[in-house]
Amino acid sequence: MVGHAFMGAVHSHAWRNVHRFFEVPLTPRLAVLGGRDGDRAKAAADRYGWETVETDWRALVDRDDVDLVDICTPGDSHCDIAIAALAAGKHVLCEKPLANTLEEAERMAAAAREAAAAGVRSMVAFNYRRVPALAHARKLVAEGVLGEIRHVRAVYLQDWLSDERAPMSWRLRKETAGSGALGDLGAHIVDAAQFVTGDLVTGVSALTNTFVHERPDGGGGTGEVTVDDCALFLGRLSSGAVASFEATRYALGRKNAMRLEINGSRGSLAFDFESMNELSLYEGTDRGTEAGFRRILVTEPEHPYVAAWWPPGHLLGYEHTFTHEVADLLTAIGDGTDPAPSFDDGLRVQRVLHAVETSAGDGGSWHAVAGTTDERR
Amino acid sequence: MVGHAFMGAVHSHAWRNVHRFFEVPLTPRLAVLGGRDGDRAKAAADRYGWETVETDWRALVDRDDVDLVDICTPGDSHCDIAIAALAAGKHVLCEKPLANTLEEAERMAAAAREAAAAGVRSMVAFNYRRVPALAHARKLVAEGVLGEIRHVRAVYLQDWLSDERAPMSWRLRKETAGSGALGDLGAHIVDAAQFVTGDLVTGVSALTNTFVHERPDGGGGTGEVTVDDCALFLGRLSSGAVASFEATRYALGRKNAMRLEINGSRGSLAFDFESMNELSLYEGTDRGTEAGFRRILVTEPEHPYVAAWWPPGHLLGYEHTFTHEVADLLTAIGDGTDPAPSFDDGLRVQRVLHAVETSAGDGGSWHAVAGTTDERR
Amino acid sequence: MVGHAFMGAVHSHAWRNVHRFFEVPLTPRLAVLGGRDGDRAKAAADRYGWETVETDWRALVDRDDVDLVDICTPGDSHCDIAIAALAAGKHVLCEKPLANTLEEAERMAAAAREAAAAGVRSMVAFNYRRVPALAHARKLVAEGVLGEIRHVRAVYLQDWLSDERAPMSWRLRKETAGSGALGDLGAHIVDAAQFVTGDLVTGVSALTNTFVHERPDGGGGTGEVTVDDCALFLGRLSSGAVASFEATRYALGRKNAMRLEINGSRGSLAFDFESMNELSLYEGTDRGTEAGFRRILVTEPEHPYVAAWWPPGHLLGYEHTFTHEVADLLTAIGDGTDPAPSFDDGLRVQRVLHAVETSAGDGGSWHAVAGTTDERR
Amino acid sequence: MVGHAFMGAVHSHAWRNVHRFFEVPLTPRLAVLGGRDGDRAKAAADRYGWETVETDWRALVDRDDVDLVDICTPGDSHCDIAIAALAAGKHVLCEKPLANTLEEAERMAAAAREAAAAGVRSMVAFNYRRVPALAHARKLVAEGVLGEIRHVRAVYLQDWLSDERAPMSWRLRKETAGSGALGDLGAHIVDAAQFVTGDLVTGVSALTNTFVHERPDGGGGTGEVTVDDCALFLGRLSSGAVASFEATRYALGRKNAMRLEINGSRGSLAFDFESMNELSLYEGTDRGTEAGFRRILVTEPEHPYVAAWWPPGHLLGYEHTFTHEVADLLTAIGDGTDPAPSFDDGLRVQRVLHAVETSAGDGGSWHAVAGTTDERR
Repeated sequence: MVGHAFMGAVHSHAWRNVHRFFEVPLTPRLAVLGGRDGDRAKAAADRYGWETVETDWRALVDRDDVDLVDICTPGDSHCDIAIAALAAGKHVLCEKPLANTLEEAERMAAAAREAAAAGVRSMVAFNYRRVPALAHARKLVAEGVLGEIRHVRAVYLQDWLSDERAPMSWRLRKETAGSGALGDLGAHIVDAAQFVTGDLVTGVSALTNTFVHERPDGGGGTGEVTVDDCALFLGRLSSGAVASFEATRYALGRKNAMRLEINGSRGSLAFDFESMNELSLYEGTDRGTEAGFRRILVTEPEHPYVAAWWPPGHLLGYEHTFTHEVADLLTAIGDGTDPAPSFDDGLRVQRVLHAVETSAGDGGSWHAVAGTTDERR
Repeated sequence: MVGHAFMGAVHSHAWRNVHRFFEVPLTPRLAVLGGRDGDRAKAAADRYGWETVETDWRALVDRDDVDLVDICTPGDSHCDIAIAALAAGKHVLCEKPLANTLEEAERMAAAAREAAAAGVRSMVAFNYRRVPALAHARKLVAEGVLGEIRHVRAVYLQDWLSDERAPMSWRLRKETAGSGALGDLGAHIVDAAQFVTGDLVTGVSALTNTFVHERPDGGGGTGEVTVDDCALFLGRLSSGAVASFEATRYALGRKNAMRLEINGSRGSLAFDFESMNELSLYEGTDRGTEAGFRRILVTEPEHPYVAAWWPPGHLLGYEHTFTHEVADLLTAIGDGTDPAPSFDDGLRVQRVLHAVETSAGDGGSWHAVAGTTDERR
Repeated sequence: MVGHAFMGAVHSHAWRNVHRFFEVPLTPRLAVLGGRDGDRAKAAADRYGWETVETDWRALVDRDDVDLVDICTPGDSHCDIAIAALAAGKHVLCEKPLANTLEEAERMAAAAREAAAAGVRSMVAFNYRRVPALAHARKLVAEGVLGEIRHVRAVYLQDWLSDERAPMSWRLRKETAGSGALGDLGAHIVDAAQFVTGDLVTGVSALTNTFVHERPDGGGGTGEVTVDDCALFLGRLSSGAVASFEATRYALGRKNAMRLEINGSRGSLAFDFESMNELSLYEGTDRGTEAGFRRILVTEPEHPYVAAWWPPGHLLGYEHTFTHEVADLLTAIGDGTDPAPSFDDGLRVQRVLHAVETSAGDGGSWHAVAGTTDERR
Repeated sequence: MVGHAFMGAVHSHAWRNVHRFFEVPLTPRLAVLGGRDGDRAKAAADRYGWETVETDWRALVDRDDVDLVDICTPGDSHCDIAIAALAAGKHVLCEKPLANTLEEAERMAAAAREAAAAGVRSMVAFNYRRVPALAHARKLVAEGVLGEIRHVRAVYLQDWLSDERAPMSWRLRKETAGSGALGDLGAHIVDAAQFVTGDLVTGVSALTNTFVHERPDGGGGTGEVTVDDCALFLGRLSSGAVASFEATRYALGRKNAMRLEINGSRGSLAFDFESMNELSLYEGTDRGTEAGFRRILVTEPEHPYVAAWWPPGHLLGYEHTFTHEVADLLTAIGDGTDPAPSFDDGLRVQRVLHAVETSAGDGGSWHAVAGTTDERR
């Protein structure tokens, strides 16, 4: 695994525990942790249970005792590490967004396709697909419970930048993060919307904004924020549905409100990550006087992933999504199949993000998403 | 009063009861109800408590025993009736949206300004300003409790057209309704957003859609839907905030979900008309470990309009907003002041709706709203 | 109508407006308002729309132009007024609790039974039966949607006495109010539980408490609180269900939280008056992965009473329950049938309250409710 | 660790991971798992990460490589194992309820007190004390945020016995489980109420019921249910507050609704385990027009235990409470202090359960709780 910050901690937890709960065909060994600062990497390895460390990701990728490379670094290094790992025949799990630019994402997806032909697997870490409520939502849509989809309404609201005195970080610089709320949060809701509906965003009209342009750099001076603070966009899906998206870190009081609402001709559903064990479902087929949004606790053994855990009503948390993710990845590797979301899925999200940035830079005018076809009437 | 359908019923209730709860300087007399079909108008007058009827609105407007004309007809007749009534020196209360076209709205606002100079008052019936929770929200924003406003998020979701077999009506024809969800629902959320923030939408990027193009006409055939089924738009406010709006009648399961969320630098608030007696407030000045959205029951005597009604926790309903509206109108007439929302306020909403339609017809490209100034950095 | 405080205001509203919304066989005329202080009664009569006043309720009861007497006074005068009115051949609507003592309630019920034989109708004003959500809940239980009832959980929480400085009032003196939270709030939840389940409380084990014994009397001194501040009791229903009840005015932050939850073998439902337009329903027959409590907005035209009002999602408020109440009463009078809840229903509640007081005075030991039979296994 | 069913799985997870997140003075080694069936114990040990197995708990307790014994068996073996382990100088963590009878609990508490004098630590596993929201609630009460406590309202609602066809299990037999919902669920809410308020239940009035007396035994016959299906009780706390409690497994639709509401003279709080990352707080000191229950997401780093985990808004789940529990236990052992909840705390709960059973058997009459003093006026 390369990187040992927030994502490194939660990925490590998943690798350490997955086989304690899931029947996976392979038992992970936490061989080596990569980090540029050897001392800090060593401390993290001890903390998280990794056997050894490497300070150069190239050395890590080349090691014979490494079968799979898990990339938890900022987006600017994803492309180089992933392509090198795939070339070395290692399976790859890569954090989202897939890359900082569309060009990098295209190259990564091409490398993944090539590697897959040789049995080398790759996956992009859109962990929210592994929230049981969202995995179940996808199943309901696929079964036709919602009928024809008409509306998608997705927001991802956080508030950690509301305070103008919050300091600079790599997430606020275009050269490291690629974009701001758009890539960090918007990528999740675009993937979630496409995953749950099984549909693609075909075009967008967008608006981005930066509210605070200078922030303390931690050394007494200030640094310039060079990414968007929020991104709002309207879109159409290939099936004819319309959609609205909003990603921001300035929604004071909303801590991690990744919300998705879908309205169809026969039913509707709603989700909020701040209540991640719940799914709201409205079925138009219910008797009129008894119809209403149901608060489903997605903690029954028949719900996706839940049988591995606790009895009904005993909640799961954030890190479970990563455990589910690596369980699915190990299963796919064991089965010799390609896991989802693939790098192509990551590329599909990247193309939407690219269209958003283009539209926002162009006064909101409509931009089609590359590689999609509009099937609307 | 002209018109005796849904709006006629609720306005009648307000006129009959306002002086039983509010100390108004004038006690309404329900002199005459206008309706084209004399028999049906007579039945409605008996039902709702009006003394006489007229089948020609011109006759009604000219009567000496009429001091105020309340216009509850579809939008295509607002302009003629309102201008005639103002010219005849009658105060006017006009249902929303002010008119079906921007040109009509401009003429109406000009007539209202002229009449005001002669002491004749006019008001547009954006009744949601009189929801105690929204009136209180405006007060909180005006007092600075939210700090600098950054995000406005407004949706108005209904579902009565979700069923493709729902029949045609005047609300689905452009010539009577002017527009679809945009004018019916979108007008409310634009006015509410401008009212609560005290700010103006300066430009928009929009998308509209019609999901169902033909509907049963009730006579065995079908009629063509010539208005939008939904309208989504992004906008900027003069203060620098960004906003998203959505109006639809296809959000299955949402009956009257007029929702508004505002995020500022110091606080946030959220409202849902389906829980119209509640306001959610987040104050960033609360201790960090005790901060959270408060569910305020807006039923305290110190809340706007509430002292006239019941003890705390005893809810108000939809029609109370109209009683509050006419109480404010009567008070303004008695005081010799201009009530709000004025026809100019209605015109400001109409200009936004016009920019939305223009942008939607133009692939979402940015359209400034006439008469506004962008004060952003 | 006798009495013109809070209840007088809301009853007047119902009498003035009922025929504007409901097809009632009789149109009320607001003939005379009774109040001991003639000037205050006159002011109230003008405010609420009554034609004349009487300062002696006996004179009011005897008037030829009075067909129905509506008793809105404190509980200590209910018995005398009701019995006199019935004896004079007037229909009676009496506020709850029916009386301050069980002995009075027995006499009133006997008088009502006798009067009914002569075609004179009487009703006790448990207005919460007319909340559409609770009327619908009763229908669901009667239809067997919940199966066999096992649990009833009812609380009525207010907070207006939380502050020790809140002043004395007639509601805090045993001689005027009979009891404290028990009769004021507990009576409502006992009636609601019996109404919705169609079952009777057969025995109780109770505990009451007074938190604040002295309060300011408004004249610089203090008065002694001689009633319970809260009443908690456990009970059994004749069908075998178990129940818990709690009534208090010291639940800080709860303004009017009259809550009822019922669990059966096939379904459950929950209600909270602070969200009085909603009913939560769980159906055990739903598919296991999609089962959940539904938030039903009880605003559809097919719901009880709602067709008379507004479209779906347009909420009703507190006073609507009284309009429904008098609509039902007028319909029963017109039809020549006995309305519900009858004085016998009021007596059934009174017997439960009496058993509660007896048990609470006796260390919680079990007390059977008079006139009930325990059908438990 | 003795036992490897549901509790064994979740305790194992805690022991495996605690030092990955918390700075504990001791790193656990999972030395030996006890289970009567050697093959099943071995499979569980492999699954959960234990090095060896023992089929006789006495052998396990005597092993030199065991420093701490974690008791995850049904209640009927707690007493023997715990007393033997303490006698052997091993620290003990024991699942709740502490024992099946009051007499056993008294002996265990005495043994723990004696062992503590020799530096041997013991803890009873009331894991809900380690829910961050409840730990924070206790802090708020201790700081006086709620003022004087007046009401405690606690329920623990599950529904897995609602279906009459659900089979027999050890939890439904008095000889293995001691009691039914009372010990399984009631123990949790009594401890939680005493923990959060810092107060003790001094007396109770109770009612228990068994709804279904015979259940399938899995072999084609039926077995007799010999425990309570539900337990309801009223109580008083030493400070003068009144309380109501209810534990049931027949609340259809409630999966794990362990709910606690506390009303004080200055504030109120409410908690529901089905939304375990949230705490509702009402502060009477808020401005009247802005007061309301706050939905606090208890996911800030300043909240108890949370800093060890993820950023704000990233939820924790059920098993985290066990990780927190063993972290606190290891810290106490390392520090040489007695951890809480002690066996004496477990005994205090047991005494309340005993009074409940006695009162329920005695028609609800009042029974004082041994060892408590009533400080009421």
